[in-house]
Amino acid sequence: MKALVFHGPGRRSWQEAPDPRLIDPGDAVVRVDAVTICGTDLHILGGDVPAVTEGRILGHEAVGTVVETGLAVGGVKVGDRVLISCITSCARCSYCRVGRYGQCREGGGWILGHLIDGTQAEYVRVPYADTSTYKLPDSVSDEAALLLADILPTSYEVGVLNGAVRPGDSVAVVGTGPIGLAAIATARLLSPSLVIGIDKAAPRLEAAKHFGADLVLTPGGDCEAQVMAATDGLGADVVMEAVGTPETFELCTRLVRPGGHVANIGVHGASATLHLESLWIKDVTITTGLVDTFSTPTLLRMTAAGRFDTGAFVTHRFGLHEMQDAYDVFERAADTGALKVALFRR
Amino acid sequence: MKALVFHGPGRRSWQEAPDPRLIDPGDAVVRVDAVTICGTDLHILGGDVPAVTEGRILGHEAVGTVVETGLAVGGVKVGDRVLISCITSCARCSYCRVGRYGQCREGGGWILGHLIDGTQAEYVRVPYADTSTYKLPDSVSDEAALLLADILPTSYEVGVLNGAVRPGDSVAVVGTGPIGLAAIATARLLSPSLVIGIDKAAPRLEAAKHFGADLVLTPGGDCEAQVMAATDGLGADVVMEAVGTPETFELCTRLVRPGGHVANIGVHGASATLHLESLWIKDVTITTGLVDTFSTPTLLRMTAAGRFDTGAFVTHRFGLHEMQDAYDVFERAADTGALKVALFRR
Repeated sequence: MKALVFHGPGRRSWQEAPDPRLIDPGDAVVRVDAVTICGTDLHILGGDVPAVTEGRILGHEAVGTVVETGLAVGGVKVGDRVLISCITSCARCSYCRVGRYGQCREGGGWILGHLIDGTQAEYVRVPYADTSTYKLPDSVSDEAALLLADILPTSYEVGVLNGAVRPGDSVAVVGTGPIGLAAIATARLLSPSLVIGIDKAAPRLEAAKHFGADLVLTPGGDCEAQVMAATDGLGADVVMEAVGTPETFELCTRLVRPGGHVANIGVHGASATLHLESLWIKDVTITTGLVDTFSTPTLLRMTAAGRFDTGAFVTHRFGLHEMQDAYDVFERAADTGALKVALFRR
Repeated sequence: MKALVFHGPGRRSWQEAPDPRLIDPGDAVVRVDAVTICGTDLHILGGDVPAVTEGRILGHEAVGTVVETGLAVGGVKVGDRVLISCITSCARCSYCRVGRYGQCREGGGWILGHLIDGTQAEYVRVPYADTSTYKLPDSVSDEAALLLADILPTSYEVGVLNGAVRPGDSVAVVGTGPIGLAAIATARLLSPSLVIGIDKAAPRLEAAKHFGADLVLTPGGDCEAQVMAATDGLGADVVMEAVGTPETFELCTRLVRPGGHVANIGVHGASATLHLESLWIKDVTITTGLVDTFSTPTLLRMTAAGRFDTGAFVTHRFGLHEMQDAYDVFERAADTGALKVALFRR
C-alpha cells in the first residue's frame, strides 16, 4: 500500500509501505476512506514530538471501512463504516475504566501515527478496535466525521471542559487554527458572554468570527490592553492555548483573571516560563491534557443533529494519493488560508 | 507603641511606631495579645515580595482584643476577643461575594503586613473589621487560634481543596514546615491512603510523621524513585508545594501522576520552568492561590472540637517584646527546630 512516512524532522514521503495485518486478537484492519492532517503532525515534523521515530506512518484521524477483525473483536465487523479515534483505549486499565483513555496504561492512548503506524495510508491496523472506533450513522458524512476523530473532542475536553467554561464567562482563545476554532465552537455550547479570538493570521480571525468570536485580536501591540478593557480590567475567566509555543502559553497566563483558568490544548516541544512570582497570589488553575475522547459519542450525536457547522472547517479537499500536496497546503496555511484539509479515497 | 518594622531586604527592627488610629468607618483598632511569624515574612525579608515597602510593620496573623471601632462596625465591639485573619474582606466586591476574599477588589485581600501595617505590633488597625475578624470562643486558646489566622486555612484551601484531595488518594507534600505540616493535617481530613512528606530537615520530617505522614523522604537521591515505587509507578494523585522555590515547584511537577494535581501553596519570588514538552500530554492540573479564608469558621469549629493537634505546631514561645529573638529562632529553623513561634503580650 501507499502511506505517508516520517523520515525525521522536516522529512516526509508518500511511498510504498507494507500492508498492515492483524497482530493482537483485539485488532482490526481498516481501509482508510477519508483522512486529515493535524497540527500535531506539523509539530512532529518540526521535531517537537521526539517519541515519533523515523519510518513511522503518520496520522491519527480517519474514517474507514473495516476489512479484517481479530478473534476478540465483537463490536465492529467487516464492512462497518467507522470513525477511527485519535485515542486508542484498552477499556480495562485503571485510567480507561474512569474514562481517561488518553492515559491508557495498556498500550493505548495516543498511539496511532505516534508510537505505531497511523492513518495517513491506504490501510491501518487499529488495536482494541471495539473500544477505539465508533460506528457511523449514514447521516454523518465522512468529512463531518473526520472532525470527530480529534479536533472536536480535543477542543471540547481539553479546552472547554478542563477550562471549566460556564454560562456568562469571558473566554479567550489564543490561536484560531482548527483546534482554536473548534474550541470556540464548543465553548459556545456553554453560553459564554464574550469570546475573544487571538491569532496572527487575518483569515483565521475571520474564521474565528464565523465560529462565534465576538472580538478578534492580533497578538502584540495593545492586544492585552484590549482583553483587559473587554473584561472589566480583570482578564478573561477562561483562556485557552491552542498554538503550542512558550510565547503563546505565557500570553495566556497574562490574559487570565485572578481566579480564572488557563487550559493548554497546544502540543509543546519546549518548556515555558511560569511566572510564579506574579501567579502564586493570583489563584489561577492551569490544566494540560491529551484528549480522552470520552465525549466522542456525545459530539457524534450532536453532529448528526446538525449542531456544528462542520462544513466550515474543511477548506481544501484532495485525493488520498495527493497527500504531499495536502501537506504542502496545510504547512503554508498562512498563505493558503487552510484550516482543515481532507483527503478522500476515490 | 512598639512594632516590627521592615527596612528593606534582610533588615528589620523592633522599634517605636505611631499608634494606629481609625481611618475608615469599618476599621477597628485591636490590641495584639498573641502573634506569630509566617514563612511569608521571611520571604518578604528575602526580597521575594517587592510590594512590601520600607517602613512597613510586618505580620498578618494575630489574636487580640478590640479597643476601638469605627462608626460602621456592628459585628464586633470594644472588649471582644478576636482572631485577626490574614485576609481582609470588604464583603461587597464581586470576588468577596463569591467567597474569594483573597482577591478582594476593594482594598482587602492580603493587606496586613503587606500593603498596610500589620500585626507584629502592640496595636493594629484592621479594615473591614466586621468581615475580617472572628470572635473567639473561650474554649479556643490564643495559641490555638493563631493557627487559624493563616496556616490552617491556607493549607486546607490552597493545598487540600485546590489539590482536590479525595479519599484513597496518594498525597505528597514538598516542604514540611508549618504550612506543609498543616497541609498534612488537613489532607488527613479527606482520608488519603498515603501521605508522603518531603523536606531537607530531619526535625521537620519527624514532625511530618507526627502529623500523619506515612512516608518521609529527603529531596534528591532516590526520592523521586521512592515516590514512584510507593504509587504504582505513576506518581502521587496530589502534590503540594509548600516551600516557594523553582526547584521544589519543578519537583512537584515530576512527582505527580498523569491526571493528577499540583497545588502550589508556596510564596514565590522567581519564575519556574514549566516543562510543557512533557506535561502537555500528561493531564495535569496546576493551581496557585492566595488563601480566601472562607474555611476559617469551619476550621475554628473543628479546633474548638479538638480535631487538630494544635499544640504540636508551636515549638517556641516569647513575650511580644522579644520579637527580634523570635525572628532569629524562626529564621534559623534548620538549627533551632522551630516550627511556629508564638509571641504573647504579658
